[in-house]
Amino acid sequence: MTMKPSPEHLLRIGMSFWNAKALLSAVEFGVFDALAETPADLRTLRAKLGLHERSARDFFDALVALKLLEREGGVYRNTPETDFFLVRSKPSYVGGLLEMANARLYESWGRLTEALKTGRRQSENKEEGDLFAALYADPERLRGFLSAMSGVSAGAANAIADKFPWKDYNSFVDVGAAQGMVPVTLARAHPHLVGVGFDLPQVQPIFDEFVAANGLAARISFRAGDFFADPLPQADVIIMGHILHDWDLDQKRLLLSKAYDALPPGGALIVYEALIDDERRENAFGLLMSLNMLIETAGGFDYTGADCQGWMRAAGFRETRVAHLVGPDSMVIGFK
Amino acid sequence: MTMKPSPEHLLRIGMSFWNAKALLSAVEFGVFDALAETPADLRTLRAKLGLHERSARDFFDALVALKLLEREGGVYRNTPETDFFLVRSKPSYVGGLLEMANARLYESWGRLTEALKTGRRQSENKEEGDLFAALYADPERLRGFLSAMSGVSAGAANAIADKFPWKDYNSFVDVGAAQGMVPVTLARAHPHLVGVGFDLPQVQPIFDEFVAANGLAARISFRAGDFFADPLPQADVIIMGHILHDWDLDQKRLLLSKAYDALPPGGALIVYEALIDDERRENAFGLLMSLNMLIETAGGFDYTGADCQGWMRAAGFRETRVAHLVGPDSMVIGFK
Repeated sequence: MTMKPSPEHLLRIGMSFWNAKALLSAVEFGVFDALAETPADLRTLRAKLGLHERSARDFFDALVALKLLEREGGVYRNTPETDFFLVRSKPSYVGGLLEMANARLYESWGRLTEALKTGRRQSENKEEGDLFAALYADPERLRGFLSAMSGVSAGAANAIADKFPWKDYNSFVDVGAAQGMVPVTLARAHPHLVGVGFDLPQVQPIFDEFVAANGLAARISFRAGDFFADPLPQADVIIMGHILHDWDLDQKRLLLSKAYDALPPGGALIVYEALIDDERRENAFGLLMSLNMLIETAGGFDYTGADCQGWMRAAGFRETRVAHLVGPDSMVIGFK
Repeated sequence: MTMKPSPEHLLRIGMSFWNAKALLSAVEFGVFDALAETPADLRTLRAKLGLHERSARDFFDALVALKLLEREGGVYRNTPETDFFLVRSKPSYVGGLLEMANARLYESWGRLTEALKTGRRQSENKEEGDLFAALYADPERLRGFLSAMSGVSAGAANAIADKFPWKDYNSFVDVGAAQGMVPVTLARAHPHLVGVGFDLPQVQPIFDEFVAANGLAARISFRAGDFFADPLPQADVIIMGHILHDWDLDQKRLLLSKAYDALPPGGALIVYEALIDDERRENAFGLLMSLNMLIETAGGFDYTGADCQGWMRAAGFRETRVAHLVGPDSMVIGFK
């Protein structure tokens, strides 16, 4: 028996930017926010969101076919997933990442070919020195970026709270803490912990607001600093989530070495990331995330658990191990 | 037991433009052509294609993780699928569609939100009257477009050859024949058939070349014409594939009525398309194709089998039925 090859797999991947953009535009229009207030028929929903008559029905029905909306008797409503994760007013909102994808990444990825030819980032003004300098200079964009990072970190934060032996430690620092999703999640899960969020000074008001809204200001504080220019705050456990991949190899090694210096003997470093599998043949998301670092940063790249364990041992950590967290994310733990 | 909702489905859809663009850039670089000549290691492949060192390995390994390449002992090679469908020199090449997606659609879809707000096409120069006028005015782009259409039609053409009772008919006309994939496939499968490809005069050299290369010039000929301005050529069976969806409702009805006029009593019209399911809740590709018509055309939209059967009956056809072809494509048959 010979299998007849089919082009469906290829065409599905190649055209999947249609699926992506339909969802990204739905987030932009506030489809899920509108339907969280009240389910609505075509006419009502279209008027509420300001869509033209021509393609509104195709758009909403495409979202139904993508399992992002439900429709019964002509009335559209959110799925349990979209209601939980894509309604802006809910603390479980993860749409910030999709907003960032819609506002910036979709277009920059249009220049992937040029990026691969030149090795140069394509995001924003290509002459600009630094993605983060640009982001942090604009309070509105910074808030959007930090909220996006919360969406990226929420699932991993729960898994880290669950899978690390926190009972053996009393304090932690989250380096590049953003809005504070990881500190808040850890402090909520483990009442004996005190934590610090370390990030650039512009982040403080957004961080403090998020921590206060979660009622954790007594155990979580903010420390302003630059993780390249300043020493890292000391704590039993240091966490770096989606930080190392932004930087080139020398910068990665420098950050690992600074973490080592800030830990007491017996302390631990947790690095988490959409780690590429050691064989580099399974985790497509991790490999594509590395291409996203090409698009977005001057020298960043993603890496395998084996890569990171090697760098940690070179930095002096006596023992290292890798544990899966959730979805594409895993953590690498180094013990000093 | 309560199921904890997970954002993975949402994030996978929302970020799938990464997967898409990786494949589109791979086609643009000629990755599959290079590896069809000879499998190669990272260094060789990178040099051959002119990729910068920074991200070449991540790029090729991402293609491995997406099951678009294989890698063994550091040597990359095509999968059976990519070798069959994405090597330009092979007659089974379907990459024309992906080339079109890469060169035009990816960017235009970046303006989906605006298209949905305004109901106006976003492709090319928005002030331009007509997508096809622009395409057909440039021989190089026309050749690319027609080759893309062959990729879209190849699977459906085989299924039409298989699933329609051709033994009861002697002649056919393919309206909007493009390169001639459907006529060639039908004539090859059914040696008693003679066929005509009907399209604008600019298409003739490309059509004739393809028919001659397939050794079918004795039974397939080209007829130049404009399917709005001119009557359709007469034949036992008239075929319109991926044609009706380009046009608005009045134009669709006009084309169906012209097909009716050109058929003898007992003749049949075959319309095939990525038909939307009648409930408009399953075939995401068909619904997104309709949004693609928003992006690409002045008034086009995709439709269900029930829609098309209704229009056919209104045009005079005495009997209609729908049959699935392959992948997202189905055909609607109307008998006069």
